[in-house]
Amino acid sequence: METTLNKTSQVISPEALLKHWQGHRALTRRVIEAFPEEAFFNHTIGGMRPFSEMVLELLGIAGPGLKEIATGKTASLDEHREHGNQKSKVLEMWDEATEEINTYWDQLKLEQFEKSIRIFGQYDGTAWSSIFYFIDNEIHHRGQAYVYLRSLGIEPPAFYER
Amino acid sequence: METTLNKTSQVISPEALLKHWQGHRALTRRVIEAFPEEAFFNHTIGGMRPFSEMVLELLGIAGPGLKEIATGKTASLDEHREHGNQKSKVLEMWDEATEEINTYWDQLKLEQFEKSIRIFGQYDGTAWSSIFYFIDNEIHHRGQAYVYLRSLGIEPPAFYER
Repeated sequence: METTLNKTSQVISPEALLKHWQGHRALTRRVIEAFPEEAFFNHTIGGMRPFSEMVLELLGIAGPGLKEIATGKTASLDEHREHGNQKSKVLEMWDEATEEINTYWDQLKLEQFEKSIRIFGQYDGTAWSSIFYFIDNEIHHRGQAYVYLRSLGIEPPAFYER
Repeated sequence: METTLNKTSQVISPEALLKHWQGHRALTRRVIEAFPEEAFFNHTIGGMRPFSEMVLELLGIAGPGLKEIATGKTASLDEHREHGNQKSKVLEMWDEATEEINTYWDQLKLEQFEKSIRIFGQYDGTAWSSIFYFIDNEIHHRGQAYVYLRSLGIEPPAFYER
């Protein structure tokens, strides 16, 4: 019985990787929410960017990057979208990106993940390594936001809750 | 011709995931090296742990966790190994963990990645989700170390170099 139900072994399925990514994105959304309005746009440590600017970078990468991976059409890198210094506007863009990612993920075929790509016309890698970079880069900057929040006396959301 | 050379499509191969992880670990090693000796053990922001304690957590997880995944024998979680307040000792443990990871990765079979596991006898997931957690948790804390370094006026190693 087990043999007939057996499917091909793999490290991770595309469905699981999407869920993993969106889980991280849901956590990042909660971290954005945890920031006081002003601090989100102004608070910095050691000459680094405020978290809002890092989030704009993430927004410039995730949706457009995945769209390029799925469609093959080179995307332009825009890390400075208009937000009018409003956290609510940034959260709105975050939710739009969530939908965009789900939409283009559906169009991704399994055989595309290991294909070579020059993402945004400048970064060489594979589809999987580009997607992993998007996720890793988000975790990296969100980790920095945790320090920003702690330095403001605010407890960040639990890292392990997705 | 292409058809006969075709292999099974996958998101990422075990070999590529190991290389990805060890690339992250090599970057974390450079971040440890970038810290002044004292600051590594003492510098904190907002009541958080010094980076040394985060690194001891990472050391407690990576090698023993992967050993458990590969062998099926429940590992104990020790996040406070003896280091004698010496960065050189921590780096030595880091390099030992690098070897340990390579050794146990060789014993991991493809069909194990999606198997359920209760890692360290307490965290439910799959082998892949546990390994991803190890990597993500390292990126998270290393991101925090970047803020520590910047607050000390030290430029961290480039995030995209592995």
